[in-house]
Amino acid sequence: MKYEREALASLLKILERIYDQMSRGEVPEIDIATRTKYNIEFDENSEVWVYGDRTSTRSAKTVRGAYMLLRMAYVIGFLKEQLKANKSSTLRELYYISENWGLAKFDEQAESDRLIEDLEILTSFQREHFRIRPEEDGATVIGPLRIRENTRRGVREIHCQEDVGEGGYQIPVNVDNIEFVDHDADFVIAVETGGMRDRLVENGFDEKFRAIIVHLKGQPARSTRRLLKRLNAELNLPVVVFTDGDPWSYRIYASVAYGSIKAAHLSEYLATPSAKFVGIRPSDIVKYDLPSDKLTDKDIQALKAILTDPRFDTEFWKNEINLQLELGKKSEQQALAKYGLDYVTDVYLPERLTELGVLK
Amino acid sequence: MKYEREALASLLKILERIYDQMSRGEVPEIDIATRTKYNIEFDENSEVWVYGDRTSTRSAKTVRGAYMLLRMAYVIGFLKEQLKANKSSTLRELYYISENWGLAKFDEQAESDRLIEDLEILTSFQREHFRIRPEEDGATVIGPLRIRENTRRGVREIHCQEDVGEGGYQIPVNVDNIEFVDHDADFVIAVETGGMRDRLVENGFDEKFRAIIVHLKGQPARSTRRLLKRLNAELNLPVVVFTDGDPWSYRIYASVAYGSIKAAHLSEYLATPSAKFVGIRPSDIVKYDLPSDKLTDKDIQALKAILTDPRFDTEFWKNEINLQLELGKKSEQQALAKYGLDYVTDVYLPERLTELGVLK
Repeated sequence: MKYEREALASLLKILERIYDQMSRGEVPEIDIATRTKYNIEFDENSEVWVYGDRTSTRSAKTVRGAYMLLRMAYVIGFLKEQLKANKSSTLRELYYISENWGLAKFDEQAESDRLIEDLEILTSFQREHFRIRPEEDGATVIGPLRIRENTRRGVREIHCQEDVGEGGYQIPVNVDNIEFVDHDADFVIAVETGGMRDRLVENGFDEKFRAIIVHLKGQPARSTRRLLKRLNAELNLPVVVFTDGDPWSYRIYASVAYGSIKAAHLSEYLATPSAKFVGIRPSDIVKYDLPSDKLTDKDIQALKAILTDPRFDTEFWKNEINLQLELGKKSEQQALAKYGLDYVTDVYLPERLTELGVLK
Repeated sequence: MKYEREALASLLKILERIYDQMSRGEVPEIDIATRTKYNIEFDENSEVWVYGDRTSTRSAKTVRGAYMLLRMAYVIGFLKEQLKANKSSTLRELYYISENWGLAKFDEQAESDRLIEDLEILTSFQREHFRIRPEEDGATVIGPLRIRENTRRGVREIHCQEDVGEGGYQIPVNVDNIEFVDHDADFVIAVETGGMRDRLVENGFDEKFRAIIVHLKGQPARSTRRLLKRLNAELNLPVVVFTDGDPWSYRIYASVAYGSIKAAHLSEYLATPSAKFVGIRPSDIVKYDLPSDKLTDKDIQALKAILTDPRFDTEFWKNEINLQLELGKKSEQQALAKYGLDYVTDVYLPERLTELGVLK
């Protein structure tokens, strides 16, 4: 609640500034960071990509700008009432709620989503602090970790091995409502696919290797990335990312490690720069003679785009991507099953994690 | 384990039959139900759609048939070993495992998936009993229900309100590993979208109305449908389905209530014929003046297909679908937020559930 009250105060300041401008007889306007790839830069301190200095101005001099400020006033008013009523809402609900706002009604959800992003950037808070929830579906966790979750129905203390079924602990939308109570873990492994997550759980990987297994469910939700960041920063646990061996999966890794361009204002909050990429690596396709599929034209395009992505500008990635383009192949995590169901937990992961220095 | 041993015995019988045919000097063959919409019929007893009498024969007289029987022998051999080792695997892993089977190797996953379906039909067991898991992601549950889950790490007893976070209880892939211990519920509400599921949880709908809230996550996984079926059949709880108001959502309802054509051999196991459709109904768009989107060409096609689908052959559906085609509109669950965040739980659902006789 502390963060939420501060976030609200920060939101109300935006309106005060507009009010002051108007009472001085000025046309109200707001400056906000430009969100394009030409305005992101690497922050040496936090080791993540953040927005640069370029800003654009929304001014009531234009009809479009005036509408935008009107809508912002309505949205902040709604967020204030919502916090007072101890409620939250989804981005989708917010869009529908504007239905009764007359001129301030949004024409499509992209507009209201964008306005919430603007408010995040203007206040340096996250939409979770405004109690705006995504539709996204958060990760599940299994491993030697005891958490305390602050729910609307009281506090729950849950051990993520002993108090959950095989499905694991379902993390809530606002991960900041979780406290880490204690743990017995040596590292965190984030897994792309459900099939592989279930394989690690079935093979007792979390018990044998003192690992916290987090299911990414494809491109990870914000709440999942926030959880990984917190496990890394607060518990000082190394994070490794285990995905398929294709360009879309490398992007999943990048979004965990470096953050995304669309949400660079949140990188410090969401990114785990020390996260290591386990694989599947293109060189693994050769090394382990893995069953593979042919790269599609879209895969090839995406691989070429990665070669110019500043987040992948390292020797390691250039070699791997060029090798993959040469091979013309991609492989999935589950392709390791070629050598039996235990190969991934008995051979592949122990070897790779020792190489990476995660296992000693 | 009892079901699994019976399933295995049933699988081995298939091989014995083939063995007997060969030792009598016959070319081995297998008869199996034809899986098309021309071979499904309504079973008056169980009130679900099941396969009819048409069968097709897979015979080793053709090369294709011979390969098919060879693969079947390999798969059954693998399933036997797997059960002995107390393991399970995904459909995807099974496909990769065949990589080392020489001539019996599958060329694509569709083939191994289909073979597992064949085995389900031949044995009248489900792939969960063979310990073959889908990649699908099962539902979460929140409500006044205490379950006992038999996990590989021991038995867990979990109350789906008191022992879980706001994310709820994540159901495992094999729902038959759950026992219902006790409950305080009057009915079950299955909800299509995460946003609406979170709305009901936030508004305390499960506590106020003694409801078990199940998140369908779009088109529901088999495990989710099996859970609904079991809650209905074993606890005698009415099931209602709450979705968006578009043709894809009506199909979600139909798959819960009547089963699907692709898996008609599982209808008795998965379908809940008494499940009631709460809405959003096309007539609700008018009645509640809901924000809506224009129907796309694909929506219109899908609505017309529903008009000829035997599962929707009732006065109610014909009227609603024709009305929707006339209106040219569709609405989402969350569109009810137009009237505020509490409208759905204070007005819409209590009214509709009283109409349906679920609330008295």
